[in-house]
Formats: sequence, C-alpha cells, structure tokens
Amino acid sequence: MRALILSEDGFEDTELLSPYYRLLEEGLKVDIASTRRKKIRGKHGYEVQAELAFEEVDPKHHQLLVLPGGRAPEKIRLSEDAKRISQYFMVEGKLIGTICHGVQTLISAGLVKNRRGTCFQGIQDDLDAAGCEVVDEEVVVDDNWISSRQPSDIPAFNKKIIEKTNQMG
Amino acid sequence: MRALILSEDGFEDTELLSPYYRLLEEGLKVDIASTRRKKIRGKHGYEVQAELAFEEVDPKHHQLLVLPGGRAPEKIRLSEDAKRISQYFMVEGKLIGTICHGVQTLISAGLVKNRRGTCFQGIQDDLDAAGCEVVDEEVVVDDNWISSRQPSDIPAFNKKIIEKTNQMG
Repeated sequence: MRALILSEDGFEDTELLSPYYRLLEEGLKVDIASTRRKKIRGKHGYEVQAELAFEEVDPKHHQLLVLPGGRAPEKIRLSEDAKRISQYFMVEGKLIGTICHGVQTLISAGLVKNRRGTCFQGIQDDLDAAGCEVVDEEVVVDDNWISSRQPSDIPAFNKKIIEKTNQMG
Repeated sequence: MRALILSEDGFEDTELLSPYYRLLEEGLKVDIASTRRKKIRGKHGYEVQAELAFEEVDPKHHQLLVLPGGRAPEKIRLSEDAKRISQYFMVEGKLIGTICHGVQTLISAGLVKNRRGTCFQGIQDDLDAAGCEVVDEEVVVDDNWISSRQPSDIPAFNKKIIEKTNQMG
C-alpha cells in the first residue's frame, strides 16, 4: 500500500506528521508531494522533505490521499496538478482523508458537491456553499472520503483512515 | 487501560502529541501530569493541559508511563515525585516508554543500570555512564522498558508501545 500527502509551507504540523507517522507505523510507503521538490516548513517550524513535485505525481500508484490543513491548502488549491490528482482519487473511488483546511483543495477541484463532510469551523460556510452537507463531528465518513475538523480530532481521523485502508487490503 | 505522560514546558511537541493521539486512538485514557497543574508549552509552541501535579499522581491507576523528550526532562528529573512515580512503574514491571531526552528522568531515578536501551545521540554517553547498555536502534525493548532516540523513530516507538500494551490486555 502506498499513500500520498499533498502539502506546502504553512502546513499544520501535527495534521501532517501524526497521520504520516501513523501510516508508516502501519507499514505503508508514504510519498510527500508539493508544488515543487523542496523542504516544506510547518506553521510551528517542523520541516519535511517533499520528494515529488505535484506535476510528477502519477496517482495510480497510490491507494490513499491525505490532505492536511494549515495555511498550505490555500497554495495547493491553486495548482492544476493538485486538482487533477484529487479528481483522480475521487473518480476512482480511492480513499481521501482531509483534515481542517485540507478540504479547500477538494472544494477548488469541484469534488464536494452533494457530499457529506466536515472541516475547520472557520471555513464550514465555504464547504456548505460548495454544495456539501457539513456535519460538526470529529470524523465524517462519506463513502471514500474521510474528513475531520481540527488537530484534536486526529485520534478519530487516524483510526478511521487505518480502518478503511485495512478494509481495502 | 490508563496511561500517564510526565512532561513540562519545553517538551518536544511531536514526541508528546503523537504518542498521546495514538493512545487515544487505541481507546486508552491518558493523563498528563507536570510539576504543577498548568498548561505546558512545547518547543514548537503547542500547548497541552497538565491536569495533574506530579505529587497528586497515584501510579497504581496507570498501566503505562510515557516520558517524551525535549528540554522538559531536565526539569522533570529534579522532582522527587517524578522519580517516585518512575520507580513504582519499574518495580511493578509496568510498561515505560522513553523517547529522546525522556530517559533523563529514569537516569536520575537510578533505573537504567544493567538495562538495555537507547536515547537521543547527544546524551547516549550519559546513559552509558549510568550503567546502561546503549543500542543505536530506532526502538529497543528491554522487558518492560521501550526506548527510542528521536522524532523520526515515532512510528516504531508507537508501534511497540501499542503492541506491548495490547499484550498486557
């Protein structure tokens, strides 16, 4: 199994690192991609190496997409490649996990209409306006899309991602 | 099952938060204690509430002790109560997990002699001088004591802690 994380400078550190460590713990290979190959830096100063640029990502090699929050998604959602990757996962019914602002990339990719999900409270109006039924719960599962609101939801978010990943075998 | 984390200001944020979230994911109750009841702040600015002072901790209620790293352990190791708590876990053969500088509290409590473990590279000489066989591996298990070196070891550290916790039922 192979997972893909899309991020950029300004990511919410624990929303990237906790799922990243959890997926490694489970034995998955995890690729981190950004607008270009570089070290990206979180809001709290943690750095991780993005070993792939979005344009180099061929998502057919991945079974799970994770979109962490922070200020990164406002950069990611501008990338046509990031939208293409997200659309591929949704069309193929592959697992997508978004936490906090991570959903902004799905909004820009036109993927939340008539879906059910959650996100950071301060952007719930945007998710609603994009045609999504917004639920204020720690984790919401709508078919292949798992979403959470904020860092304190990480235990429930990770648990559901691991559960669904294992179901996929 | 109930876990106890001892920490203080200056903790290594991911070394506290990742195991904390992982234990919650597993359904454990987790208590965070510090020198007094207060909000403690990590090196990278994350804050968690310590709801117990060390002196209030009765470790017979806990099955697992986690000692994260950062600059916090140099404060914790000065506390007679923190040493008392650590000694209780060791004498009772209850699980103890240390990562990075977390081991400093065990050193001061006189608990590492003739044991086998690991820690952050910069204090491995101190662990050695205290009579411990130091191993440079991502996770070392010596009976009830699980130890790791640094944040990048978190996946292996958490995996082993969960594995041993589940064995204890």
